[in-house]
Amino acid sequence: MTEETDPLADGGRDRTPAENAQLALLLEVSGTPKPGNVDRHRDLGDLRFEHFMAGAVGAADGLRRAEAGDPVGVAFEDAVAGMANQQGGNTQFGCLLLLVPLVRAAASDALTPRGVSEIVKATTVEDAINFYRAFEHVDVAVDDLPSDADALDVRRGSAAAPTLRERGLTLYDIMGFSAEPDDGVPDGNAREWVTGFDRAFGAADRLLADEGPVGDRTARVFLDLLAEEPDTLVAITHGKSTARKVSHRAAEVADEIAASDDLSAAEALAEEFVDAGYNPGTTADLTAAALFIALEGGLSV
Amino acid sequence: MTEETDPLADGGRDRTPAENAQLALLLEVSGTPKPGNVDRHRDLGDLRFEHFMAGAVGAADGLRRAEAGDPVGVAFEDAVAGMANQQGGNTQFGCLLLLVPLVRAAASDALTPRGVSEIVKATTVEDAINFYRAFEHVDVAVDDLPSDADALDVRRGSAAAPTLRERGLTLYDIMGFSAEPDDGVPDGNAREWVTGFDRAFGAADRLLADEGPVGDRTARVFLDLLAEEPDTLVAITHGKSTARKVSHRAAEVADEIAASDDLSAAEALAEEFVDAGYNPGTTADLTAAALFIALEGGLSV
Repeated sequence: MTEETDPLADGGRDRTPAENAQLALLLEVSGTPKPGNVDRHRDLGDLRFEHFMAGAVGAADGLRRAEAGDPVGVAFEDAVAGMANQQGGNTQFGCLLLLVPLVRAAASDALTPRGVSEIVKATTVEDAINFYRAFEHVDVAVDDLPSDADALDVRRGSAAAPTLRERGLTLYDIMGFSAEPDDGVPDGNAREWVTGFDRAFGAADRLLADEGPVGDRTARVFLDLLAEEPDTLVAITHGKSTARKVSHRAAEVADEIAASDDLSAAEALAEEFVDAGYNPGTTADLTAAALFIALEGGLSV
Repeated sequence: MTEETDPLADGGRDRTPAENAQLALLLEVSGTPKPGNVDRHRDLGDLRFEHFMAGAVGAADGLRRAEAGDPVGVAFEDAVAGMANQQGGNTQFGCLLLLVPLVRAAASDALTPRGVSEIVKATTVEDAINFYRAFEHVDVAVDDLPSDADALDVRRGSAAAPTLRERGLTLYDIMGFSAEPDDGVPDGNAREWVTGFDRAFGAADRLLADEGPVGDRTARVFLDLLAEEPDTLVAITHGKSTARKVSHRAAEVADEIAASDDLSAAEALAEEFVDAGYNPGTTADLTAAALFIALEGGLSV
């Protein structure tokens, strides 16, 4: 083997899509300050940074299955089962719901809004069943589904399978319900599924256009995403009006940071949100998805 | 499939040895304060926390090859090549030199001093050649080998292969030279290879016997290891006498912490070491190895 043909001889080896997805999970939780979330400098009681490290390690097998072309539902359930092997509870369920189809798309050289849309639209009833089974591995904060959909409440886990089969509902159909519920809180991750991952691609462009260490870029894009739209998890746990208030505060601080090029205003906001118990977890999921797209697009670490 | 026989139905899936090794890399760098090293709360100039995240992601493929039974040298070079794909330079070369044989041992249910000794003693000339090749992927701080060994200076990379073959030197032989050089600094990692990973197993027992979050346990065991013996990297970069002084300071602070059950004295030491440019990287390698052994032994995260 000569040095010219040796892929290892240039000082390193490119990351695969599954590796970039795992790195996106790690960079997301490392970015600081991310007001209200676990980050490099903050734990939230018994939910600690190390649980996110273990979650990212355990999720990798499922991400590799997505890269290898396994069905979205199978890869997702596997990733969640691996993620769940730590004491912190749900660390990255929502991130993985976004990352699995994105990895599938990247592995087929189709990491575009259209490419990932084709993948999520092609999901099947079996994918939906696997998605429901994933809820058996970990407690996930969810809002009620529409009142006529009790048989499809995700908390039913595997027990929802007969209803899914009977009605012929695919995972994409389920995401459609969650994205635009008749009542209750629209799910921000489900909305990505049905809009070609619109916000994640937009945030990835901002990560790539930004400058400085990736941890700082992550903090800025997180705050921008939170400022743009109310966070689903905050809306579920504290109500829609509080979620709007949280986004309003994020917008004020984002403006301050943009004017001063100094992240310290976000440190104060982090204390404020942690004290109030506001945990914008869905915005963190979007941030991880954006980091993945940016890494695939050449963001260097 | 019934719930009784479904390995995923219990809320999580056990980690494999390769996954525990990757987690050990992540927990090592996350433990804080680890005076003089990059940790959750400190970067060292252009060597930042995110580089260790990317290093751990890239190393996983080689760790899985070790788990699958690939030769130690092949798995190690692959892990280093993956690790090197980030801008920080050498993040975890020494950790991987310890973890690869430990993973091999764990994968054969032989994670004991005797089990890992058998693995390192069985290394071949080809393993040695792969080890030398690994130096081509990343700049590693090294001390000079004994004066009659210039042809075996690790900085020669692949060019050392003819000499290794001619003299029939295995990787275990090379580690023997580095562990007890005629002059120069004995290498702490090489000494683990030739002593049945004595310090790593001892530190793992302490991690398991300790209490509290794993990040705190990591900080305490790091300081104990540094107090016990001068760090190789500090000795190479600042001389043996400074390395002894650094260990003496670590011992003072370790005593203070043991008496007060409060890690804050180590925060001050971290500032002191960072200001002085003391970077006890070999002690961090030992800490990662100890974390791996402890995770395999049931340390829960």
